[in-house]
Amino acid sequence: MIIRPHQNWFIRLFAWHGSVLSKITFRLSLNVLMSIVAVISYQWYEQLGVHLTIAPFSLLGIAIAIFLGFRNNAGYSRFVEARNLWGSLLITERSLLRQIKSLLPDEPAVHQKVAKLLIAFSWSLKHQLRATDPTADLYHNLTSKELAEVIASPMPTNRILLMLGQEIGKLRRQGLLSDITFELLDNKLSELSHALGGCERLASTPVPFAYTLILQRTVYLFCSLLPFALVTDLHYMTPFVSVFISYTFLSWDSLAEELEDPFGVSANHLPLNAICNTIERNLLEMNDQSPLPPPMKPDEHFNLI
Amino acid sequence: MIIRPHQNWFIRLFAWHGSVLSKITFRLSLNVLMSIVAVISYQWYEQLGVHLTIAPFSLLGIAIAIFLGFRNNAGYSRFVEARNLWGSLLITERSLLRQIKSLLPDEPAVHQKVAKLLIAFSWSLKHQLRATDPTADLYHNLTSKELAEVIASPMPTNRILLMLGQEIGKLRRQGLLSDITFELLDNKLSELSHALGGCERLASTPVPFAYTLILQRTVYLFCSLLPFALVTDLHYMTPFVSVFISYTFLSWDSLAEELEDPFGVSANHLPLNAICNTIERNLLEMNDQSPLPPPMKPDEHFNLI
Amino acid sequence: MIIRPHQNWFIRLFAWHGSVLSKITFRLSLNVLMSIVAVISYQWYEQLGVHLTIAPFSLLGIAIAIFLGFRNNAGYSRFVEARNLWGSLLITERSLLRQIKSLLPDEPAVHQKVAKLLIAFSWSLKHQLRATDPTADLYHNLTSKELAEVIASPMPTNRILLMLGQEIGKLRRQGLLSDITFELLDNKLSELSHALGGCERLASTPVPFAYTLILQRTVYLFCSLLPFALVTDLHYMTPFVSVFISYTFLSWDSLAEELEDPFGVSANHLPLNAICNTIERNLLEMNDQSPLPPPMKPDEHFNLI
Amino acid sequence: MIIRPHQNWFIRLFAWHGSVLSKITFRLSLNVLMSIVAVISYQWYEQLGVHLTIAPFSLLGIAIAIFLGFRNNAGYSRFVEARNLWGSLLITERSLLRQIKSLLPDEPAVHQKVAKLLIAFSWSLKHQLRATDPTADLYHNLTSKELAEVIASPMPTNRILLMLGQEIGKLRRQGLLSDITFELLDNKLSELSHALGGCERLASTPVPFAYTLILQRTVYLFCSLLPFALVTDLHYMTPFVSVFISYTFLSWDSLAEELEDPFGVSANHLPLNAICNTIERNLLEMNDQSPLPPPMKPDEHFNLI
Amino acid sequence: MIIRPHQNWFIRLFAWHGSVLSKITFRLSLNVLMSIVAVISYQWYEQLGVHLTIAPFSLLGIAIAIFLGFRNNAGYSRFVEARNLWGSLLITERSLLRQIKSLLPDEPAVHQKVAKLLIAFSWSLKHQLRATDPTADLYHNLTSKELAEVIASPMPTNRILLMLGQEIGKLRRQGLLSDITFELLDNKLSELSHALGGCERLASTPVPFAYTLILQRTVYLFCSLLPFALVTDLHYMTPFVSVFISYTFLSWDSLAEELEDPFGVSANHLPLNAICNTIERNLLEMNDQSPLPPPMKPDEHFNLI
Repeated sequence: MIIRPHQNWFIRLFAWHGSVLSKITFRLSLNVLMSIVAVISYQWYEQLGVHLTIAPFSLLGIAIAIFLGFRNNAGYSRFVEARNLWGSLLITERSLLRQIKSLLPDEPAVHQKVAKLLIAFSWSLKHQLRATDPTADLYHNLTSKELAEVIASPMPTNRILLMLGQEIGKLRRQGLLSDITFELLDNKLSELSHALGGCERLASTPVPFAYTLILQRTVYLFCSLLPFALVTDLHYMTPFVSVFISYTFLSWDSLAEELEDPFGVSANHLPLNAICNTIERNLLEMNDQSPLPPPMKPDEHFNLI
Repeated sequence: MIIRPHQNWFIRLFAWHGSVLSKITFRLSLNVLMSIVAVISYQWYEQLGVHLTIAPFSLLGIAIAIFLGFRNNAGYSRFVEARNLWGSLLITERSLLRQIKSLLPDEPAVHQKVAKLLIAFSWSLKHQLRATDPTADLYHNLTSKELAEVIASPMPTNRILLMLGQEIGKLRRQGLLSDITFELLDNKLSELSHALGGCERLASTPVPFAYTLILQRTVYLFCSLLPFALVTDLHYMTPFVSVFISYTFLSWDSLAEELEDPFGVSANHLPLNAICNTIERNLLEMNDQSPLPPPMKPDEHFNLI
Repeated sequence: MIIRPHQNWFIRLFAWHGSVLSKITFRLSLNVLMSIVAVISYQWYEQLGVHLTIAPFSLLGIAIAIFLGFRNNAGYSRFVEARNLWGSLLITERSLLRQIKSLLPDEPAVHQKVAKLLIAFSWSLKHQLRATDPTADLYHNLTSKELAEVIASPMPTNRILLMLGQEIGKLRRQGLLSDITFELLDNKLSELSHALGGCERLASTPVPFAYTLILQRTVYLFCSLLPFALVTDLHYMTPFVSVFISYTFLSWDSLAEELEDPFGVSANHLPLNAICNTIERNLLEMNDQSPLPPPMKPDEHFNLI
Repeated sequence: MIIRPHQNWFIRLFAWHGSVLSKITFRLSLNVLMSIVAVISYQWYEQLGVHLTIAPFSLLGIAIAIFLGFRNNAGYSRFVEARNLWGSLLITERSLLRQIKSLLPDEPAVHQKVAKLLIAFSWSLKHQLRATDPTADLYHNLTSKELAEVIASPMPTNRILLMLGQEIGKLRRQGLLSDITFELLDNKLSELSHALGGCERLASTPVPFAYTLILQRTVYLFCSLLPFALVTDLHYMTPFVSVFISYTFLSWDSLAEELEDPFGVSANHLPLNAICNTIERNLLEMNDQSPLPPPMKPDEHFNLI
Repeated sequence: MIIRPHQNWFIRLFAWHGSVLSKITFRLSLNVLMSIVAVISYQWYEQLGVHLTIAPFSLLGIAIAIFLGFRNNAGYSRFVEARNLWGSLLITERSLLRQIKSLLPDEPAVHQKVAKLLIAFSWSLKHQLRATDPTADLYHNLTSKELAEVIASPMPTNRILLMLGQEIGKLRRQGLLSDITFELLDNKLSELSHALGGCERLASTPVPFAYTLILQRTVYLFCSLLPFALVTDLHYMTPFVSVFISYTFLSWDSLAEELEDPFGVSANHLPLNAICNTIERNLLEMNDQSPLPPPMKPDEHFNLI
């Protein structure tokens, strides 16, 4: 399902684009203010010998654009990695359930137990990453004893993985799995462990904070001084050109910071709810259960959360 | 088979290049219009003290070019990843069939059954990604019962993978496969699962929409204001230079957006039909079936779909 | 063996560098012509109010350089990937032969049969990628029945892989390989399948053609108009500077296009003949066969093909 | 746990950002000094025909910015790789313990022994990378005989891995593990070996030192000469603009050098203590031991070490 | 062990940085000469209407900087890949020895035999990559029969790998290894084969030579013409600014070429001797042999070879 809002280019020009615009509105207003100050006062302060030209700002602006490009790369690659990890969750959980259904076709209770634990694993990871309470999403899929154990644990998602390990360990001791087929399933648990650990890593290690500080500082200062450099040439056009350039730089800076932390709930973050819902629908469908929970729909701004 | 049209450089200058040109024609016309307005009116509005110079636009243009480079990287790497996933489909399906022919050389019925399910898997994935009806491409390769099950499922391609799992599970229970050789084949199914899940991920998660909006907005505004910045220096040459610069920026922006979604049917998208046809021909050829379906030919614009 | 010609920097300045220079000579001559036209006519057309300055060309030139950087990245990474795939061919074929020699040290006939099929696999892939006739390189290594089968197949290289699969399947049925050791060897065949499929993918899917067209068009137009922008400042120096800048841009564009398709036979393409020769020498040496075919030598331009 | 200090943009402008600022303070002061010299003396030395303009510095500044972008990429990718290696440590250690608990649910002594060795492995690696004394962190988790052996070894962390290998080798000889399940666990030890070797590689092979030297030299010289190029246009504003541009270049250079060596103890280095603490807490929690050691808290500057 | 010489920034400015400076000294002297020619003669040749301005050189310089950025990326990623391959050598050899010690704890003769072959493998690879005579480093670790066989082979390192394969094949036939544990060890040999083949690939396939030629040619020409473009504005300052800019461009070009071929013996190449020494020390230490060979020390320029 591709969500691509506003194909019409004219509408796009004025479209709402998540939380980026709201974050930079204040800065842009400040920029307009500085421009007006520049237009009004430049003749006065030039008489005092204070003088700014555009040449050093060109050099600086291009340098900052290069660094912004680097920073967006860093932020976007975190976004992509996070999405890949969640994609691998779906892939691995489907594969694990497929394997169990191939190996033990006559054990529907096992199919359902494993599916429930896998579904609980995804929801629990979402809540762990967003620091929200998982109870409402877990109690359908865990026994009350399991739920209590998970809620009590400081590492709830890893605890569910441990339960999955115990489950397939039990199948092996019951003789339903040989060492070889146990290995096959256990490898999928290790893949889930990779996805879990990868998400935890992204959440706990931001891009070194000095990048954010240095870049933001230089972008803000650049945008604030820009009107004074433009005004000699552009006079009354200063506010328009200055706001345009500032918009370009500020929105890229803001977007990079937003993407860097992909597990939030704003418009440019990953729709973890929708992904968990997709995983749940897939696993239930593989077990021929019906009705499936309905797929999540984007809101009026074409956003999923 | 390499399709490289128009080796002659002169023809290339005027060659049709897919849907990009048609998308940006309107914008380029608008740019010509703005240029003419600029040429006609600039003496008048300069008297009013309204004044634009090229220096701030140089800075801005280079910054936008850097961001366009970033965006094209993001879009192109999605295109490459999608192609790699489809390439891994072909590789894995050939490997799986090769393994079955090595392990069970005297079971031609198994060879054909597996080949049919694999062919159906590819076609089904193509239809799922393009949201088209798979029936016409599936009914040759599935029994009517299987077809009904696949069509009824909200996750048809994953359902075919489940059938493949059941098929090799059956071979194991029949004693034709040991646990070790079952593992060998099942690993290939997990690879197919990766390709499937990867394509679903690309289709359901575009590049964060804010990138498209911010970049398009700045590119459009940049191209619209450019003539007014060029006109003081270039006079009558303004429309030519302005359209040339705009063409460069608009076509890169447009191409990035097109590549970002590689499963469409325009000229720069992946030729999924041709790839599915190649997969089908390969698997049938490995089973020594003849005649093979003919390879797909590019159309008069050298395009495959 | 490293081939690094012309260590002397002075010789390098005038060295022949493959097919790039010959491809762009015509364009460079055109550029000289345009420069001369510009020098001769600029006073006349400036009187008509036709006027070009260097500022918009600086902006455009830098933007084009950024896009050329992107394009060279895309082309070069295809070259590197192709080389890696051929490198993995050598690695995997050596590993497979080593495994067979470890597992079945007393079966020299098997060693030789497998080595021959592996050698045939490499040569066949080379001919498939260059669309040349493989017979001369295959008939040493295949029985006449096998050769006929391979030549008749529309997918000859994959057919040889199938034969390798049958060979190790036969060893398993003869009890020379257990399921475990069969798995070990079969995994190497899957790696060969990856290298084969990867090369086929690179050959059949060029960089989206719109990139080539858009970039070439803008580069050519840029180089053609450049003299008219330079002439006001540079007068008689226009042709020299203009040709210098054009050389830089045209050669990068040309090189990117050449590298993008790494299986050709020009100087900057992969020396597939030499690589196949290396593979053959390695495998024969591992079987202590002598004399080995001689290593291929670069020609007088330090090039291998 | 995400640590994102100073969400307020105004505070951010003046926030402390690790050791970068302190490192470049001296250079920035020097730059102010050069600016003042330039402002005071430029009229005098211009009379002598000594003259600098901003155009060549623009070209040079942009080139240096491009190279700084490259260098930050190189440094940052080392930081990311180091973090990934430590992330894989946590993932692998959890997986290994999960497997042992699945395979041998009734052997709590084995669970604890393995957990202790794994915890010791992480702490030992931290101390090896920072060249500090590991005794205080190891003696809880190793027997005194083991501790003596580890401390005496020139490769202490690898020695602990060897002990883990002996431990699972013993389980295999005791018949608690089959060859298959031994393989499963041993593969995890090989993954630990990868993380260990990867960290050792990063620590022992810096980015080629010539990059650091060349870039630092050009950045320092650029910043020192810049005031003399700006002063003709900017007069009294020279110090402000010059310091601003210098800050941008010097802080990026300094940050790249800091990230390049990610195992230090300054603010932008990896918080290895906190990661080891997380690993310890995770493994103990999986064994249901309590109380867990408390999680580490960032200091008043929001930094972990 | 991190080797980071000259932490003091002032010393750094004048530090020796490997072979880069010596390579470009001649070119820089030429540049000074051209600058002096320019300063002396520009008034004369300007009267003849010969005239160069800095604007086209800004455009060209930035384009060249972008291409240098690309080239350094290509060269540096080869350096990193080579280092990773050597890192994986150490990791894999340690893992293989650990596995043998876990599986066969009571066979010290096997431990030592395998360690010796692994050590010989590393030294042989080093000599193969640098085209030096391996005898002195091999005769400690190989029997005289083995040594003769290795020296006689045109692929000596691969020959040692074959011996390792025969060794573990022998253990399997003696019943010391099952098929499963044989597989475990053989997979490590395949990893060694990857490292070997990867190094051979890097050594035999340079970056396409046209990149080196085109870039060097444009950089040299750019640096030679630059003084003539600067002289109109800068007069007596031309030599200083011109040499500064040339130093930046020439050193990056030179460094990229040096890194591209990481197996040499200059300061910015990989210290293969030290890495082989580390491998030898590690494997001997794992076998509790003493005394270990001393670790290699960097020379007075902080360089290892």
